[in-house]
Amino acid sequence: MDNRAIGVFDSGLGGLTAVKQLMRELPHEDIIYFGDTGRVPYGTRSVDTIIKYVEGDIRFLKTFDIKIIVVACGTASAVALPVIGSSIGLPAVGVLDAASKAAVKVTKNKKIGIIGTPSTIASKAYGTKIRSLMADVGIYSAACPLFVPLVENGHTSSEVVRLVAQEYLGDLKDSGIDTLILGCTHYPLLKGVISGIMGNDVALIDVGEQTAKRVGEFLCENGLMSERTGKGSCRYFVSDTTENFEKLGSLFLQQRIEGLVNKVDIEKY
Amino acid sequence: MDNRAIGVFDSGLGGLTAVKQLMRELPHEDIIYFGDTGRVPYGTRSVDTIIKYVEGDIRFLKTFDIKIIVVACGTASAVALPVIGSSIGLPAVGVLDAASKAAVKVTKNKKIGIIGTPSTIASKAYGTKIRSLMADVGIYSAACPLFVPLVENGHTSSEVVRLVAQEYLGDLKDSGIDTLILGCTHYPLLKGVISGIMGNDVALIDVGEQTAKRVGEFLCENGLMSERTGKGSCRYFVSDTTENFEKLGSLFLQQRIEGLVNKVDIEKY
Repeated sequence: MDNRAIGVFDSGLGGLTAVKQLMRELPHEDIIYFGDTGRVPYGTRSVDTIIKYVEGDIRFLKTFDIKIIVVACGTASAVALPVIGSSIGLPAVGVLDAASKAAVKVTKNKKIGIIGTPSTIASKAYGTKIRSLMADVGIYSAACPLFVPLVENGHTSSEVVRLVAQEYLGDLKDSGIDTLILGCTHYPLLKGVISGIMGNDVALIDVGEQTAKRVGEFLCENGLMSERTGKGSCRYFVSDTTENFEKLGSLFLQQRIEGLVNKVDIEKY
Repeated sequence: MDNRAIGVFDSGLGGLTAVKQLMRELPHEDIIYFGDTGRVPYGTRSVDTIIKYVEGDIRFLKTFDIKIIVVACGTASAVALPVIGSSIGLPAVGVLDAASKAAVKVTKNKKIGIIGTPSTIASKAYGTKIRSLMADVGIYSAACPLFVPLVENGHTSSEVVRLVAQEYLGDLKDSGIDTLILGCTHYPLLKGVISGIMGNDVALIDVGEQTAKRVGEFLCENGLMSERTGKGSCRYFVSDTTENFEKLGSLFLQQRIEGLVNKVDIEKY
């Protein structure tokens, strides 16, 4: 048994879709969340810069008494975790591993699609992971650079987001995939638009949901669950001001977080 | 006469539209450009964070032998310059002053519109400046949060950008303005779409163009022009990797800049 907290980070708000699932799966655990809102987005930056930012984010989380790091950012998970994972000094679960395992379980025709930020798709990390889990699998991917700014500006079901999604998803639709990994924690908010284009026969893999399940399994297998019987606490830290995060974060989490958010000068870490 | 360089900075690529005009107006001047590509965008961040980043950008530029700072970022100019301008220790010209003066000269019906990032519009800095230059003027503004990501992803004339522009510009169109300040250095790339919606009777003020003119006037009035007769040089610095900047920068500048771009660790400044 281990009552230390779960440390979670994301480039900004998106990781809250994973926190929401963690709270559901593991209600007795304490959570420390860091959102790098002062340097978001990660998905259009270079590998070097993403790794530098992720190292700082992890150094910050490690100032707390935590037992595991959850990389709740699709880009950080695909681009940085394969490089720095072994040097973290704590168990780390990223969305990439969790989503890849889920996709391999779900697919029937062995044709798996991945959508993500430009950096995530350029890394080819999903293809590498999925091929290590399943032979003769077809991998089809598409970068969706405008999805994050669209979601962050409230476009989750507008004509604009539908047009953009049609542009991004057209080739994936034609490829005949039966499983699509939503490889960025913002994308669950676009599920309606995406499934409208892909059709009901394509299973959508929500990385936040899969990551929360994977964290639960890991804690259970390793005897690291909290022995608390009451509800765990959640504290939020961000690198820009707290106001906007409190407002938008409540949407992502579907619960109020006013007063629970603190600002941190991440460039010092 | 003063052969020191002109220091220019922007949150990323947009300021290159001002550099292009500076090269045209002041061909004998040396230019040092810094684009904060590792922390772009500024226009959706808080005032505190924007000021912190701008202070670092200016400290970096001041490590060179420069005679003037050009704030070629609409957001930095509107949000940070009014607060920190007097403490820079060098003359500083921002896009806000230059564009406001131009708009006041151009308007006939005293109805001026401004479009910019959310932070620029929230600052109300254009209204304050324009009212100090002209009595009884009507100010109409609209935040355009998706314009920067759209431009940076190549959407300069697509159906998507037209739909977004119609949403953002509808009220401005109805207000009867005869002059519209494009208050962000990315927006000149959307001139076609914007004038298509606003009509030919609305004059569009390009902040980069106006800022270059204002810098020329200032150097001339203060005896600070270079005495060089040959072409000045331009060096570029960025806080993310140079590749993407070289590629997209060539589009903004309409000339090749490969090999002239260096990376800097801006968080150290």
